[in-house]
Amino acid sequence: MTRVCIIGAGPSGFTALKALREAGIETVCFEASDDIGGNWYYNNPNGQSACYQSLHIDTSKTKAGFDDFPMPDDYPDFPSHQQIFQYFQNYVAHFQLRPHIRFNTWVTEVTPESGGWRVVTDQGEAAHFDYVLVANGHHWKPSWPDYPGDFSGETLHAHSYRHPGDPVQMQGKRVLVVGFGNSAMDIASELSPRYLTERLCVSARRGGYIMPKYLFGQPADKALLPPWVPGWLARRLFRWVYRFTVGDVTRWGIQQPDHQPLEAHPSVSGEFLQRLGSGDIEMRPAIERLAGDEVVFSDGRQERFDVLVFATGYDISFPFLPEGLVPLDDNRLPLFKRLLRPEHPNLIFLGLAQALPSLLNLAQVQMRLVVPLIQGRYRLPSAAEMEAAIAADEQAHGGHYYASRRHTMQLDFARYEREIATELKRGVSARRGGNRVEKQSA
Amino acid sequence: MTRVCIIGAGPSGFTALKALREAGIETVCFEASDDIGGNWYYNNPNGQSACYQSLHIDTSKTKAGFDDFPMPDDYPDFPSHQQIFQYFQNYVAHFQLRPHIRFNTWVTEVTPESGGWRVVTDQGEAAHFDYVLVANGHHWKPSWPDYPGDFSGETLHAHSYRHPGDPVQMQGKRVLVVGFGNSAMDIASELSPRYLTERLCVSARRGGYIMPKYLFGQPADKALLPPWVPGWLARRLFRWVYRFTVGDVTRWGIQQPDHQPLEAHPSVSGEFLQRLGSGDIEMRPAIERLAGDEVVFSDGRQERFDVLVFATGYDISFPFLPEGLVPLDDNRLPLFKRLLRPEHPNLIFLGLAQALPSLLNLAQVQMRLVVPLIQGRYRLPSAAEMEAAIAADEQAHGGHYYASRRHTMQLDFARYEREIATELKRGVSARRGGNRVEKQSA
Repeated sequence: MTRVCIIGAGPSGFTALKALREAGIETVCFEASDDIGGNWYYNNPNGQSACYQSLHIDTSKTKAGFDDFPMPDDYPDFPSHQQIFQYFQNYVAHFQLRPHIRFNTWVTEVTPESGGWRVVTDQGEAAHFDYVLVANGHHWKPSWPDYPGDFSGETLHAHSYRHPGDPVQMQGKRVLVVGFGNSAMDIASELSPRYLTERLCVSARRGGYIMPKYLFGQPADKALLPPWVPGWLARRLFRWVYRFTVGDVTRWGIQQPDHQPLEAHPSVSGEFLQRLGSGDIEMRPAIERLAGDEVVFSDGRQERFDVLVFATGYDISFPFLPEGLVPLDDNRLPLFKRLLRPEHPNLIFLGLAQALPSLLNLAQVQMRLVVPLIQGRYRLPSAAEMEAAIAADEQAHGGHYYASRRHTMQLDFARYEREIATELKRGVSARRGGNRVEKQSA
Repeated sequence: MTRVCIIGAGPSGFTALKALREAGIETVCFEASDDIGGNWYYNNPNGQSACYQSLHIDTSKTKAGFDDFPMPDDYPDFPSHQQIFQYFQNYVAHFQLRPHIRFNTWVTEVTPESGGWRVVTDQGEAAHFDYVLVANGHHWKPSWPDYPGDFSGETLHAHSYRHPGDPVQMQGKRVLVVGFGNSAMDIASELSPRYLTERLCVSARRGGYIMPKYLFGQPADKALLPPWVPGWLARRLFRWVYRFTVGDVTRWGIQQPDHQPLEAHPSVSGEFLQRLGSGDIEMRPAIERLAGDEVVFSDGRQERFDVLVFATGYDISFPFLPEGLVPLDDNRLPLFKRLLRPEHPNLIFLGLAQALPSLLNLAQVQMRLVVPLIQGRYRLPSAAEMEAAIAADEQAHGGHYYASRRHTMQLDFARYEREIATELKRGVSARRGGNRVEKQSA
């Protein structure tokens, strides 16, 4: 009987577990923490959550919910992490998943073993699995930039930021937030009022577009175009809407972006532009070097700060995989349908994408292909075909994203959903066709 | 020689002083505090400023600045109170007004005296003036609502609110903000993050429209229509824009307003709706009664709170005027062109309006009429004509505002500016015509 292992009980892990249980597939899910939730478990004792106290999901609840378990009606448009966590708890309880999760268990080694995988945990146990589903997250290993010189003040990464008093007391400080992603938006906005910090600057290497949370009186992600609208048209329409509603970002001191809206994963914030417009936040260009208690920027400006907050993103990492098993290079891991390497078709990566609008329910879509694959109802293309598909997908999904280390995992959710459906149809019919061919030749 | 007294050195007072000095009119300005600025002097020792630490002006700098002294180019769209205060300081220094201001001096009595006014101060001095210009502000005397029952927790009025730790430590508290004006928006938004308060509710007796700070990528007040657009058309267009951009306010839990947008002075906030949409703020209806540590709302809901913040507005008050000298009734004081009572044409009220977009530069417009009046170049209409004009103006300005104690001083700035120009033309030509008539009859 086929045995499956899932690494991690965040939303990708436990929705995968539900899909496999439902299909009657024997599955064990290992979770390093004492509870499910992953990144959405505030102060997660496994040390891997980047959740800060004021965090709200930036996808509206209608877009972020699981397709088999809607979010409660009384939830706000953009629920808090506490509400998301409670929603997860309800999901896991409703589908009775908890007995199949091994908590407080780190997976330490995953190595190839007779066509499957040998999985070793920190509890001193080892077991063989036919499939390993990797759902260990990609927001837990802080990426630190490297600058010439030293900084004598306090530094922290957004990953460890909890609130204005934890882990660094921000009261009265001169703070520089480095980065221009969602964490940078949120943390800078939160720390910017003058009763908290003396000064709040944000350093960004380049300009970018900030998506409002609401557009035309609705959560902005409801205004996303359906997947049958051609990409070039969607981007053109969005560009027009953006110019009309948000306008020229340079009027807020943001550098002129070197790309068009939607050509990069947009940062979402309802407050950041307001804070810039009220002068509570000031933009700065890239850091050139550090000099004691001062920071030298690329425009030559030299300024004193007490705290640097690096909201500079995360590195993708699979500490349990043998070095070189997968070609992870500079945060890029090209996968067939964002799922697997052609050379390891039973090592599956879940939720390893920056999905727009939401990451929470991405694994659910992925399991539409993964379950039939494990069941043998769906046949993968040949390794060569998969390599060709990877190259083509990278072009289709990533071609209009500009090159940046941060933007290695862009994913348009609705288009991806259609692709998975198409691929499933192809692979299932190939499987059936394959059987027929075998029978005919028998 | 005509002698003029100004009461108060806030923006109305010191811009009036500048206009009078420029016209060569002998003027003394009395200020209770040790500095200029009035409401914009944070922690004003005269105890009359309602300024909180995070306050930013809700009018954009291009609309709020003085016409004879533009705001600095490097100011943000919505400057902070510190920046506004500095701008005031620069204005007063530039026009060398300080020597004409008597600081630390409260005016205690203003009584009619031989066609002029006897002005007494707390410094034990008394003097005669031909004109008294009242610029004592209308955001200093808190208006407290009255409910049946008692509340055992902490209560404060928005007037005394400084920041989340002053005068009440809000950390971990369940807070109810009462009111739906700009202070309620700002204070509720500021206190709503969960790292500050445990719960933040806003009680409003009725629904209302919240104006965003930005519209179409520009400060929203730049989108105000020119004054030659008829009022009914302006309101209809605005209604359409509001529905298109902000949408239906009831989706955020705000009651369906009983009026149309712009029929009441809108509250301005870039954050409040975002906070409602993220569930950090929850709306409640009117308070019905207080019951110990609980508040009973008009929908029957009963809820425990630790702190009540009354952002319930201000009473108009002139403590130095004899009781009954002006017919101030339930916060209404009908004035000819918002300036004076027909029976006291040399007692002039400055800045006594909720001007949209800005109050800062209202007195500058008013002085276009007041200076010629004092110089004798402009002739007021007869008392009966003024009474008729007051009634007509109340209708024109206030007719489309719904009846509320808070909305007794609505003023459309651009329309008012045109009215003052028209009235000046009439009164100057009446004066000239009057002279001619006198000459002819001589």
